[in-house]
Amino acid sequence: MRVRSEEAQEVAEALLAAAGTPAPHSRIQAETLVSAEMRGHPSHGLLRLPRLLERIDKGLIDPQASGDMHWLRPSELRVDGLRGLGPVIAFNAIEQLISRAADTGIAFAAISNANHLGMLSVYVEAVAEQGKICIAVSTSEALVHPYGGTQAMLGTNPIAIGVPTSNAPFVLDLATSVVSMGKIHDHALRGAALKDGWALDEDGNPTTDAERAKKGSIAPFGDAKGYGLGLAIELLVGGLVGSAFAPDVRGTLDADNVSNKGDLFIVIDPIGGAQQFTRISQYLDAVRSSRPAHPTCPVLTPGDRARHRRHCASEHGFDVNDALWADLRSRINPSSLQSMQELQS
Amino acid sequence: MRVRSEEAQEVAEALLAAAGTPAPHSRIQAETLVSAEMRGHPSHGLLRLPRLLERIDKGLIDPQASGDMHWLRPSELRVDGLRGLGPVIAFNAIEQLISRAADTGIAFAAISNANHLGMLSVYVEAVAEQGKICIAVSTSEALVHPYGGTQAMLGTNPIAIGVPTSNAPFVLDLATSVVSMGKIHDHALRGAALKDGWALDEDGNPTTDAERAKKGSIAPFGDAKGYGLGLAIELLVGGLVGSAFAPDVRGTLDADNVSNKGDLFIVIDPIGGAQQFTRISQYLDAVRSSRPAHPTCPVLTPGDRARHRRHCASEHGFDVNDALWADLRSRINPSSLQSMQELQS
Repeated sequence: MRVRSEEAQEVAEALLAAAGTPAPHSRIQAETLVSAEMRGHPSHGLLRLPRLLERIDKGLIDPQASGDMHWLRPSELRVDGLRGLGPVIAFNAIEQLISRAADTGIAFAAISNANHLGMLSVYVEAVAEQGKICIAVSTSEALVHPYGGTQAMLGTNPIAIGVPTSNAPFVLDLATSVVSMGKIHDHALRGAALKDGWALDEDGNPTTDAERAKKGSIAPFGDAKGYGLGLAIELLVGGLVGSAFAPDVRGTLDADNVSNKGDLFIVIDPIGGAQQFTRISQYLDAVRSSRPAHPTCPVLTPGDRARHRRHCASEHGFDVNDALWADLRSRINPSSLQSMQELQS
Repeated sequence: MRVRSEEAQEVAEALLAAAGTPAPHSRIQAETLVSAEMRGHPSHGLLRLPRLLERIDKGLIDPQASGDMHWLRPSELRVDGLRGLGPVIAFNAIEQLISRAADTGIAFAAISNANHLGMLSVYVEAVAEQGKICIAVSTSEALVHPYGGTQAMLGTNPIAIGVPTSNAPFVLDLATSVVSMGKIHDHALRGAALKDGWALDEDGNPTTDAERAKKGSIAPFGDAKGYGLGLAIELLVGGLVGSAFAPDVRGTLDADNVSNKGDLFIVIDPIGGAQQFTRISQYLDAVRSSRPAHPTCPVLTPGDRARHRRHCASEHGFDVNDALWADLRSRINPSSLQSMQELQS
């Protein structure tokens, strides 16, 4: 089903509002989900909405919470998310970091007790669009095995880095697993075989069977190096936020537990202004126009593909799983919609 | 040739002193080289010393310089290395960061105009031993091709992360290339074939010929993700330090140019004290004792292997290339040595 982004935004906002979410919070949470769809990452999109609503319904998410923030030291913001929606808490923290970094040069936020943030690229891009550099890392349930190991001991531990340029920001966003758990689930649904090297089964043996992989573990990306980076992120977040380490993390995927993972944002204010941004853009353009491996596939830099997809999606909409879209529409309470007559047709 | 670390330290100090390096600077530079040898990374060890001496001789390194440091903002240290020895400038900056982070929570140093730092693990480990978290990144000459590209456009751009624990620190140190240029040179010397996927030749074609690879480019580690991380480091350093981007970097490998790469250090002061460090150690121990892929090879965490090697090296010394050691010894001016009678024997 092809859906326009405005339509998806309205449906998501309406459902969140009907669950008791204040309008500004519904807007931010819905935008984060729709933005993931537009970037071509449905695993972080509308698919998450039924689970979010269920978590609100069960009191695992407090949709009213804006987070309790205080500056412990001049460049250190401690954030208790008070079980709030991840994007609401994170954007509140980021706003403070941007302002503080302008004064001190750099500032970080250690966020506990917030719900799932969705794609980190959304945040670092927003910061970069305001002329600041942002590094974001987050933890999750244990899904990834160590290099040389066979048990899930690490989260998929994404890192995102946004850097302002004189054009669109540089936006890197990567999980430190070779593939996302969402992709494993997607293969399981379609009955498709996994690639060699992606996953191990429960007993620690290599498997291409997605159903077995779901009970097992995913490989880190890039062998020992990717494992090391994922573990460093685990320690940075767990160590600075004081949140749980992967084997004890709950509540980012399930509907039974309060979320106890952590999130860490670092914002840095670059000097040099427009001239510096131009220099960065020129270097990125040189990389893009360097000799490609395949003549018809120019070299890309992180964020290029997602930006292209988003542009297409804003003009032509994006595909949503039929059953998911039907489910979401069936939940709509007509009285909670004001400007959505077209959905009732 | 097996060499004791004390002996290597004395030889390196003596040669640096003879080139006009003040004693404290000789000690720091020599320790950094010897520490790399002891960790099992001779590519960053004594091999570098003849080139360092040549650069001092040519005025490309000022061995007296301690760097010009000023706090531009409360958490931002700007460092002009004044062509000083990399380790001297970096340790001076780090000392200030550690003290400042205790007040502000986090602080960073943007270092320009310093010479090659050697292994970044040395620095992040020193910071972690003082109870602080450290993230270090650095740039270099263009040696790495983009994912999907065939020309060297990025440096090998290492990242190191040190985290204090209740035992030895967690120390991650990785180049964002799949293999170091040092390893390519080593294969060239031995006439050994490179592994598939490591390198491209000058024309952008895959090669296992180390001589051809030296004129070509190395692959990023971990495909698109490692490329993205390497590029992010390029932008973080170039953007925050204002130093050259890889295609314009000179002076970390050659004997003809002032070094114009940049270095970036971020130091964060964790809260939670001993209890927090214990929690981190317990998690790392759980990872180490998780089920290994091969029963006789327990799971390691970053820094474990280097620590083991260093322990062995401190007891039994380490191997140095015969020709290199003979060269270094032949340069020694006996009058500059006081406690090295054994070397004259």
